[in-house]
Amino acid sequence: MNYKGRQRRLQDTLSAHLLDALLVTHLPNIFYLCGFSGSAGVLVLTEAESVFFTDGRYTAQARAEVQGSQIAIARKGPSVAAAEWLGAHTRRGRRASPVRVGIEGEYLTVAARTRLSRMLPSNLRLREAPPLVERARMVKDAEELQRIREAVQLEARLFERALKVIRPGVRETEVAAEMEYAARRAGAEAMSFPTIIASGKRSSLPHGRASLAAIPRRGFVVCDFGVILAAYCSDMTRTVHVGRVSAAVRSAYQAVQEAQQAALEAVRAGVAVSEVDEAARKLLKNNGLAKYFTHSTGHGVGLEIHEAPRVAAGQSEILRPGMVITIEPGVYVPGKWGVRIEDMVAVTEQGCEVLTLTSKELITI
Amino acid sequence: MNYKGRQRRLQDTLSAHLLDALLVTHLPNIFYLCGFSGSAGVLVLTEAESVFFTDGRYTAQARAEVQGSQIAIARKGPSVAAAEWLGAHTRRGRRASPVRVGIEGEYLTVAARTRLSRMLPSNLRLREAPPLVERARMVKDAEELQRIREAVQLEARLFERALKVIRPGVRETEVAAEMEYAARRAGAEAMSFPTIIASGKRSSLPHGRASLAAIPRRGFVVCDFGVILAAYCSDMTRTVHVGRVSAAVRSAYQAVQEAQQAALEAVRAGVAVSEVDEAARKLLKNNGLAKYFTHSTGHGVGLEIHEAPRVAAGQSEILRPGMVITIEPGVYVPGKWGVRIEDMVAVTEQGCEVLTLTSKELITI
Repeated sequence: MNYKGRQRRLQDTLSAHLLDALLVTHLPNIFYLCGFSGSAGVLVLTEAESVFFTDGRYTAQARAEVQGSQIAIARKGPSVAAAEWLGAHTRRGRRASPVRVGIEGEYLTVAARTRLSRMLPSNLRLREAPPLVERARMVKDAEELQRIREAVQLEARLFERALKVIRPGVRETEVAAEMEYAARRAGAEAMSFPTIIASGKRSSLPHGRASLAAIPRRGFVVCDFGVILAAYCSDMTRTVHVGRVSAAVRSAYQAVQEAQQAALEAVRAGVAVSEVDEAARKLLKNNGLAKYFTHSTGHGVGLEIHEAPRVAAGQSEILRPGMVITIEPGVYVPGKWGVRIEDMVAVTEQGCEVLTLTSKELITI
Repeated sequence: MNYKGRQRRLQDTLSAHLLDALLVTHLPNIFYLCGFSGSAGVLVLTEAESVFFTDGRYTAQARAEVQGSQIAIARKGPSVAAAEWLGAHTRRGRRASPVRVGIEGEYLTVAARTRLSRMLPSNLRLREAPPLVERARMVKDAEELQRIREAVQLEARLFERALKVIRPGVRETEVAAEMEYAARRAGAEAMSFPTIIASGKRSSLPHGRASLAAIPRRGFVVCDFGVILAAYCSDMTRTVHVGRVSAAVRSAYQAVQEAQQAALEAVRAGVAVSEVDEAARKLLKNNGLAKYFTHSTGHGVGLEIHEAPRVAAGQSEILRPGMVITIEPGVYVPGKWGVRIEDMVAVTEQGCEVLTLTSKELITI
C-alpha cells in the first residue's frame, strides 16, 4: 500500500480546511495512513511532518509495520506525547496565531477531548475536522479492490458450507460455528460482524444474530455474514427456505430479488447514492412491500464493515469509480418472516462490478 | 436480574451528583440497567422516571427484553427522541433553573455531543457525569457471579482443546480456530476478544493475536482467550512450552507463577488495587524481571472484557466483595520469549475465590 501517498494527499488538504495539524485517533484511519495494526496509537500530521506515537508494548510492531511516519515510543502514553509534540510545534511564520489542531469528532470521546485540552498549551485550538480520512477511504485502489475480492470469495465458500449444515432441528449457532470455523481455517482474522442466522419467525428480525433456537421445519433462513481477510471486510446475505414454499412467500422473495437487481442496475459513477436506494424502494413499492423495507439499501465496506458512503434516502454522496458498497434490500413482516439479499459491488464508470458471484435464485432445503 | 433495583439505586444518587437526568448511551450500561441487548438505544433516567428509546427495527426485541423502563419507539432515532423528551421535561418546582443532564463522557463522541447540544432547548445543560454505572457494575451480584463462573468453566474446556492441537508446525490460527469452534458449539455468543496464540518469538508480544505463523519446534506458546456466554465475559491465559525447556526459561516461568500467586494472595476486601499490582511486581523485581513486566496486573471483567477497576500502580480503588478481576502478570524479553499466567478471581471479605481452576504448572508439549 502507498502509505506515503495517502498521507501526502491528506497533508495537502489541511490548509484548505483551515487546519495546521490533524490528530488521527481512529484505529482504522491510522492503519490506512501508516499501516499500524495495533490497538494503541496516535498519528499526527502537519503539512510537512508525520509522527506516529505509540507505547512500549508496540515498539517492535510499530517498527515492523509503520511506513511514511516517524515513530515515537511514548513513555506516558501516545496522547500525552502527541500533545507535547504539538505544543512544541508552532505554525511557521505566524507564531502569534493559534495552532489549529483537527480532531476526529465522530470517534474521539468527550472525555478524551477534555483530557487532551488540558494537556495542550494555550496557543493550540482543537477543532472538529471534517471526515477527511473516511472520505479518502471511500475510493479503493487496485490493491484494496483485490483484497476485498479475496474476502468476498472466501465468504462465498462459507455459504456453501452453510448450505450443507442448514436443516430443521439444527441450532442457528451451529450453522454459525461451522461457517466461522471454515473462515478461520482459511486464514480469516475474524468475522467482520456477529454472524446473522435468523430462521423461521426470527428471519423477520433484520439483526437476528445466530441464537440457540433450532431451525424450524418450514420457513426462511436469513444468512448474513462476512470475513476480515488481510484487514479487509466482506459482507453478503442470502436467504434460503426450509420446507415447502407458499406462492405468497415465493413472490415476496422474487420482489426482493427484483428490487436488488434494480438497485444494482442503478449503480454507476455520477449517480447519487439516494438514487440507488430509491431504485430498490420503488420496486418494492410497486409490489406493496415498501413499508416492510425498514432499513437503508447499503453501505460502504473496506477496512470497516460499515463505512462511508451510506446508501440511503436523503444522502447526496455521488458514486465514484472504486467505491465499494453493499446492495441489500430486505422485506420483514413482523412476527412472520423476512428476506434479504445482499451483494457487494465496486463502482465503475459504466456501472458496477458485482463482487459477490453466488446465485440469488431461491434455494429450498 | 433486578433491573428495577439497579435503576432505583442509580436514580437515588443523581441529585447528589447535581444531575436532574442521566443520558445512558453506552450499550453495556443500557443492558445492565434495563436488559436491552440490541445495538441502538438511549436510556434516560430522572429521579422519578425511566424511558428507553429505540428505533423501529427493535420494537419486538425491546418489548421482549426491556424491564424497569417505559419503551419509546422513536421514528427519528433514539437520540432525537431522547432530546425531545428531555426538552419537555423540567425540574419540578424550579422552572427557572437549567436542567442538568449527565452524559457518559468516556463513551459519547465529540460529534454526538455536538448534535445532541443542537437538539436540546436552551434550558438544558449537558455535563460529563462521573462513571456511575461503571462503578455499580464493578460489584457483581450472585446471578452475575454464577454466569461468570459458567463462562470461566467453558474457557477451561477450550484450553483442554488447545492442548490437543498445539504442536510444532501447526499455525497459530488453527489453534484459535479449534478453540473458537468449540466455544460456539458450546453455546458461546462470541469470544470475548481476539484470541491470542503467540508462539516462539511472538510470545514476547503481549498482544500477539493468533497469526498465520507456524508454531516452532521449541519455545513458549502464550494462549490468552475468553468467551462471552449469556452476556458475561471470561478471560484466562496459560503459557505452555514446546520442546526442551532450558533452566533459565523454566526459572522465568516459575518467577511469573510465583508473582501471580503473590498477587492472588494480596486480593482481599479493603485492599487497594495498587497493592495487588505491587505484590506481583515486587516478586518479579526480586527475580530481576520487573523491567520485563510492561503492563498492569489486571482489570475488572463482566459484561465487558475490560471494565473497572484497573489493577495497576497508582490506582486507588479499594477492593470490595463481589468485584471480579483478572490477575495476569507477565514477563516479555523483546525478540526472544514471553510468559503470562492469568486467572479470574472474585473478591471476598477474607480473600478471593479463584474462578479459574486450570493448573498453572508448566506444561511441555
